[in-house]
Amino acid sequence: MATLKQVAAHAEVSVQTVSNALNAPHRLRADTLARVNRSIELLNYRPNRNARSLRTSAVELIGYCVPNWPNRTHLVMDQFLHALCAAAERTARHILLFTAEPGVDGMPTYDDLHARRLVDGFVLSQTETRDPRHGWLKNQEIPFVSFGRVWKETTQPGPWVDVDGAAGSALAVRHLYDTGRRRIAFVGWPKSSGLGEDRLGGWRTECKRLGLPTTSLAVRCREDSIEEGARVTGELLDAGREVDGIVALSDILALGALRELTRRGLRPGPDVGVTGFDDSPLAEVVSPGLTSFRQPMDLIAEELIAILTGGSGGAPAERLLQPELVIRGSSVPG
Amino acid sequence: MATLKQVAAHAEVSVQTVSNALNAPHRLRADTLARVNRSIELLNYRPNRNARSLRTSAVELIGYCVPNWPNRTHLVMDQFLHALCAAAERTARHILLFTAEPGVDGMPTYDDLHARRLVDGFVLSQTETRDPRHGWLKNQEIPFVSFGRVWKETTQPGPWVDVDGAAGSALAVRHLYDTGRRRIAFVGWPKSSGLGEDRLGGWRTECKRLGLPTTSLAVRCREDSIEEGARVTGELLDAGREVDGIVALSDILALGALRELTRRGLRPGPDVGVTGFDDSPLAEVVSPGLTSFRQPMDLIAEELIAILTGGSGGAPAERLLQPELVIRGSSVPG
Repeated sequence: MATLKQVAAHAEVSVQTVSNALNAPHRLRADTLARVNRSIELLNYRPNRNARSLRTSAVELIGYCVPNWPNRTHLVMDQFLHALCAAAERTARHILLFTAEPGVDGMPTYDDLHARRLVDGFVLSQTETRDPRHGWLKNQEIPFVSFGRVWKETTQPGPWVDVDGAAGSALAVRHLYDTGRRRIAFVGWPKSSGLGEDRLGGWRTECKRLGLPTTSLAVRCREDSIEEGARVTGELLDAGREVDGIVALSDILALGALRELTRRGLRPGPDVGVTGFDDSPLAEVVSPGLTSFRQPMDLIAEELIAILTGGSGGAPAERLLQPELVIRGSSVPG
Repeated sequence: MATLKQVAAHAEVSVQTVSNALNAPHRLRADTLARVNRSIELLNYRPNRNARSLRTSAVELIGYCVPNWPNRTHLVMDQFLHALCAAAERTARHILLFTAEPGVDGMPTYDDLHARRLVDGFVLSQTETRDPRHGWLKNQEIPFVSFGRVWKETTQPGPWVDVDGAAGSALAVRHLYDTGRRRIAFVGWPKSSGLGEDRLGGWRTECKRLGLPTTSLAVRCREDSIEEGARVTGELLDAGREVDGIVALSDILALGALRELTRRGLRPGPDVGVTGFDDSPLAEVVSPGLTSFRQPMDLIAEELIAILTGGSGGAPAERLLQPELVIRGSSVPG
């Protein structure tokens, strides 16, 4: 199928002129218009004409609430949104972005968007323990899918797609083991984080499986900051734990670990192998580069849209995807 | 005006039950329904009923193309999107997010979204030199406004809102001067960046105004990375330029400067004052905290929506907003 650009090249006019020929032919000189139309015919170019009617309910919009966690960094949100839009567009749908109050106070917004038929379903993120949205949407029979599980509940309250953090931690341990590390620490979040406990569990299980020690090797930061990552790394080193590997729960914490190691004259990579999580832009801009786990954003988005638009027959759909290890200098023995 | 929550409290039912009373009354027991309806009446609660018809062209959607620059970090994009949605919602509009090819190849997407009346106008960002979108949209008489100027052009091709980077740099110089610095360097981007040259100009002008030296004090990084920020900071120090202040063009470069100073036993803040740009999440997570410039996101969003929806009488609207200096430890003499 010919593109607008090919038509323009063929007719030896600008792309703008081709668009004018289609949308505002009166703006063109008669001979130019004739030339463009001939190229359109010869190349069999088909503008999306039959869609040029009034907006119809056939055009489905999917609602996504733009996250607003003041105390968290969203270092990969642009990647997620780009992937989500692209996946929706492959099914001729689009993403409607909106804001809502957190918790139950936000429900009237979801309700209103759906009642006015502005959206036909929702992709949820920022799921929280006892998240009120799932039950509400289910009762209203509004289609939804959640990016991320709801932690600390025995059954998930609806269909979801998530990345297997426990498997990521286990893979990090295995990778550090394979590069010769035998005392691998875990630098994590406070206990209140379900996601943090999931990743901690993966580290512990894999260490035990490989016969590696875990006692006193898991430490918790008070918050997700470079400072805290550096502080607990210092504690580990001061305590004489002879750590030669660090699995950090986030790129931010891993950056703190790198900083503290460097400050003490230890070389991240050759002396202590370090891994992070999320493969944020930070992982590439530090030196040595940070080995990290990439969330498979395109696949996540693809699954979210497939579940949302695929009807809801049978049990709720659940997709636990594997993160991809991206190896950089911070874990290479050198 | 009463909220759904107040109605629920008054009727002593859940918010969900009030919503059911409005949207699915058959789900409720008759006495519950009666109680909720009485509370609705007593509190004069008004659900947005008249909008509950089919989607109409009265509901305006504003298109925004989600950025996808593989080699750039979008550390504040979630803040921008949240502000943009909130501003649109205050005028009863919503944001439709989409993806498009860069440059002229993306124009059919803009054209199609508008022709199908999915959107009524566009907010542009990622403006580039000779950006094809402005002329196209203008010719099609499609409303648009640009977040960011188009650099290296004598006149701007349409209405825009931007943050005054030159004023930010000047303010950074002034702030460092006020904290006693007299040899203030500028760590910037390659010459090809219009934004970079704008901020460089602000640094130079203010230094001259204050009688401070500029010769050999402006250095350029090859790319926006911590590594490059550290490298050129090292060059400045090695060259014996006796630098006591550094205005870095981005938080990423500033982080590199902090790292190199610390590595050499210099204290960021007391020994060398450092400032960044954009007040990204990074500025708060490092230690000492990074003094940086915050883009006034709420105001930017407010102005973008006001220009876009305010009609286009007379000269194109232009709004140059001032960044806000956020002072942290990296610039405090101690």
